[in-house]
Amino acid sequence: MTDISPLAPEKFPDVDPVKGVRFATRGVGVKYEGRTDLMVAELAQGSAIAGVFTQSLTASAPVDACREALVSGKGRARCMIVNSGNANAFNGKKGIASVENIVKASADIFGCEEGEIFTASTGVIGEALPDAKITGALAEMKGMLGTASFEDAAKAIMTTDTYAKAGSKKVKIGDVEVTISGIAKGSGMIAPNMATMLSFVFTDAAIAPDVLQGLLKEATDKSFNAITVDSDTSTSDTVLLAATGKAGNGEITSVGDANLGEFKQAFEALMIDLAQQIVRDGEGATKFISIKVKGAETDGAAKRIALAIANSPLVKTAIAGEDANWGRIVMAVGKAGEKADRDKLQISIGGVLIAGEGEAVEGYDEAPVAAHMKGDEIDVLVDVGIASGEATVWTCDLTHGYITINADYRS
Amino acid sequence: MTDISPLAPEKFPDVDPVKGVRFATRGVGVKYEGRTDLMVAELAQGSAIAGVFTQSLTASAPVDACREALVSGKGRARCMIVNSGNANAFNGKKGIASVENIVKASADIFGCEEGEIFTASTGVIGEALPDAKITGALAEMKGMLGTASFEDAAKAIMTTDTYAKAGSKKVKIGDVEVTISGIAKGSGMIAPNMATMLSFVFTDAAIAPDVLQGLLKEATDKSFNAITVDSDTSTSDTVLLAATGKAGNGEITSVGDANLGEFKQAFEALMIDLAQQIVRDGEGATKFISIKVKGAETDGAAKRIALAIANSPLVKTAIAGEDANWGRIVMAVGKAGEKADRDKLQISIGGVLIAGEGEAVEGYDEAPVAAHMKGDEIDVLVDVGIASGEATVWTCDLTHGYITINADYRS
Repeated sequence: MTDISPLAPEKFPDVDPVKGVRFATRGVGVKYEGRTDLMVAELAQGSAIAGVFTQSLTASAPVDACREALVSGKGRARCMIVNSGNANAFNGKKGIASVENIVKASADIFGCEEGEIFTASTGVIGEALPDAKITGALAEMKGMLGTASFEDAAKAIMTTDTYAKAGSKKVKIGDVEVTISGIAKGSGMIAPNMATMLSFVFTDAAIAPDVLQGLLKEATDKSFNAITVDSDTSTSDTVLLAATGKAGNGEITSVGDANLGEFKQAFEALMIDLAQQIVRDGEGATKFISIKVKGAETDGAAKRIALAIANSPLVKTAIAGEDANWGRIVMAVGKAGEKADRDKLQISIGGVLIAGEGEAVEGYDEAPVAAHMKGDEIDVLVDVGIASGEATVWTCDLTHGYITINADYRS
Repeated sequence: MTDISPLAPEKFPDVDPVKGVRFATRGVGVKYEGRTDLMVAELAQGSAIAGVFTQSLTASAPVDACREALVSGKGRARCMIVNSGNANAFNGKKGIASVENIVKASADIFGCEEGEIFTASTGVIGEALPDAKITGALAEMKGMLGTASFEDAAKAIMTTDTYAKAGSKKVKIGDVEVTISGIAKGSGMIAPNMATMLSFVFTDAAIAPDVLQGLLKEATDKSFNAITVDSDTSTSDTVLLAATGKAGNGEITSVGDANLGEFKQAFEALMIDLAQQIVRDGEGATKFISIKVKGAETDGAAKRIALAIANSPLVKTAIAGEDANWGRIVMAVGKAGEKADRDKLQISIGGVLIAGEGEAVEGYDEAPVAAHMKGDEIDVLVDVGIASGEATVWTCDLTHGYITINADYRS
C-alpha cells in the first residue's frame, strides 16, 4: 500500500507561495507515528473564504462546523486547522465537542473570531478525536508559521494517498499578477481509513466572499464533482478557497467583472488538475479514464450519463481487462435514467468509432483500439445523438488492487 | 467459472408441473456446443400473460417486442420462446428483424396470433442472432412438447449461471388447489456474457390479465427489483407470468378478490426465492447479504437507502473481508439522498446493535458479531429512526472472484 500509484505525476509540481498565507505542520500523533499529521494555514487579516462540502446527509461534525462558520464569520477567515489520522466522523456529541475545543483554542491563540476558524479532519471514523493533542500544539505552531511549504502542507493531510497533490497558476487580474496555489488529498472516495477528499486552495487576489463562493461552486461541479473512484461519498469531503487580497488588485465584487475571466479559467484548470490527481491515486487504479458525453438532452443529463458509465463496475473491470467492451457502455447509458435512443447512440474509444446506429460498426479498425486499451490513459466518447448537452468526467479502472485494499484490510 | 457457487442451494428443488404448460428444450448451437440453448413453453389456449421488463432506456429488441405483444395480444399468450448464448441486444435493424422472424415462425407453427408469442434472448450482445437456427428447430420442438421438465427448461436458459434456478408452491384459491412454478436465470446483473436476469413463472389458476399484471408488478418490486449484484442493469431483463386457467377455479377478475390472498402471498414468496437464488449465484459471491432498513421517511426511501448500502463497493468489500465496518454503512446511508439524521441512526449486524446515537455503542459484544461475519449469511439492520418506512433488499459481497470474472475475461 506504500507503492506510489503507477498513474502518479513524475514529481511534485512547482508551487508558488501565496502572499498572505503561512503554513506550519507538525506530527502530533493523532494516529500516525513518524510523520506530520497536523497542518495550520494562517491567512492575512480580512481574507475572504468560500467552501463546498460533501452532499452526504450524514456529514461529519467538522463539515457541519465549517458550514456554520461560513455564515457566522460572514465569509472571512484567519485559519485552517487540518488533521489526518482521524476523521472525527460519527462520534456523536464527543465529536461536536472536539470541533468546538479546536475552534475555541485556535481563536484564542490566533486572535480572531471563532467564525474565522475552519477545521477539517480525515482518517478513521467512529473513533474519538484526541483533540487535546491538536489544541496543545497550536501555540508552538503559531511560532512556526512560514516554515512549511505547500509540499509540507500537502504531505501533512495525506492518509492512504500514495503521493502528495498540489498545483499552482499565475494569472493577471487587470494589470496585477496574482497567484493561485492549492493542495488536495484523497484516493478512494472513502478509503480503508476513510480517505475523504479534501482540497485547500489559496490566492492573493482580492475577491469578495460571495463572488469567491460562486467561483468555487462552479469550478467544483466541473472538477471534484466530476470525478469518481468507486461511487461512494465520504462524510467529510471539504473544499475551501481563501483569497487574502495581498496581490494589490482592486477587490472584485461582481462575478460578471470582465477582469475575472483569466482568473476564472486558470482557477478551474487548477481545480480540474487537483481532482484528476485524486483519480490518479484511486485505490488499485492502473488506468486513468476520461469519459466525455455529448449530444445529451442537457449538460446535466450528459453528466449523469457520464457518471453512470464511470461508476459501472462492469465498465471499470472491462477497462482493467483492456477490453473495449462497448456493450457494457450501452448498458450503463441505459441505466442512467436520462433520455437516450439505442439506435442513435455512438461510442468511440481512443478516437475510433466502434458502435453506432444501434449496432457495432462493421469492419472498424480494431488494432488502434486494442493499442489504446493497453495504454494507461483511456478516452471514451459517447454521442447520445439527441441534443447538445455535454459533460466530461474522470475515473479509474476497478482492479484486484481495489479489492485487496478494501476487503483484505483490517482496521 | 464452472465451479458451483458456494451459496447455491443443496440441490435443484422439487418443482410441480403446471396444468396447461408444456416444455421442450433443444441444443440448436446459437453459441454454446454440447448443451441445450433453446426453450419453448407452450401455454393452453386462452392463457393470460403479464410482463415486467428492464427499466433500461437502451432495452433490447426482444424486450421492445414483448412490451408490444402485451398490448397487441390483449394479455393472452400461447408461447414463450427463449434462447441463451446471444442476447440479440444492440443489433440495430438486424436485431428487430430477428425477433420478427422468430415471432412470425412461431405463430405459424403453433397456430396463434403473433401477439401471443413472447420471446427472450440472453447471452452476448452486439452479435447478430442466428435466428434461422431457432426458427428451423421450432416445428420439431412442437412435436417434443411435454418431454422437458422445469429443470430442463431452467438449464436451457442458463448463461454464466453456475446452477439452475427454480421454485414451486401449491395454494388454494377458494376450494381449488392451484400450482405456481417458475424458473429464473442470472448471476451478475450483467455478466461477462451479459447474464441478463430472466424469470418465467406459470400457474394453472384462472386470473384475468389485468389482475395478473398487478400481481406481477407488486411482487417484482419486492423480489427482482430488490436485489442487486453490482448495481448494473441489463438491457434484457424480463419477467413473465402466465396463468393457464386449467386448475378449475372461477376466474379472478379483481385484485381485491378475497380468494386471492393466499395465492398472492405464495406467489410473492416464490418470486423472492427465485430472486435470492440469483443473488446466491452472484459473480464471485461468498456471502449472501440481507439488508433491512426501517424507520425511514417512506417505504420508497427505505428501499433507496437499502440499495445504496447494497450497491456500495466499500460495504461489499468490507463484508467480503469479514469486517463489521459500520462506518461504511453510515457513509452509504448518507449518500442515498434520503432524509436521515446522523445522530438517530442505529446499525445492527447479526442482531447486535453496534452503532447508535451518532457513535459506536460502547462496549458492545464483538464476539458474536465477529462470528456472524465469518458465516455466509450476513444480516444488516439499519434503523433510520425518523419515521416508519421499511424495505429489505438482498445482495452479495464483492470479491477478487468478481474482478477475475469481469476483468480477466476476454470475449
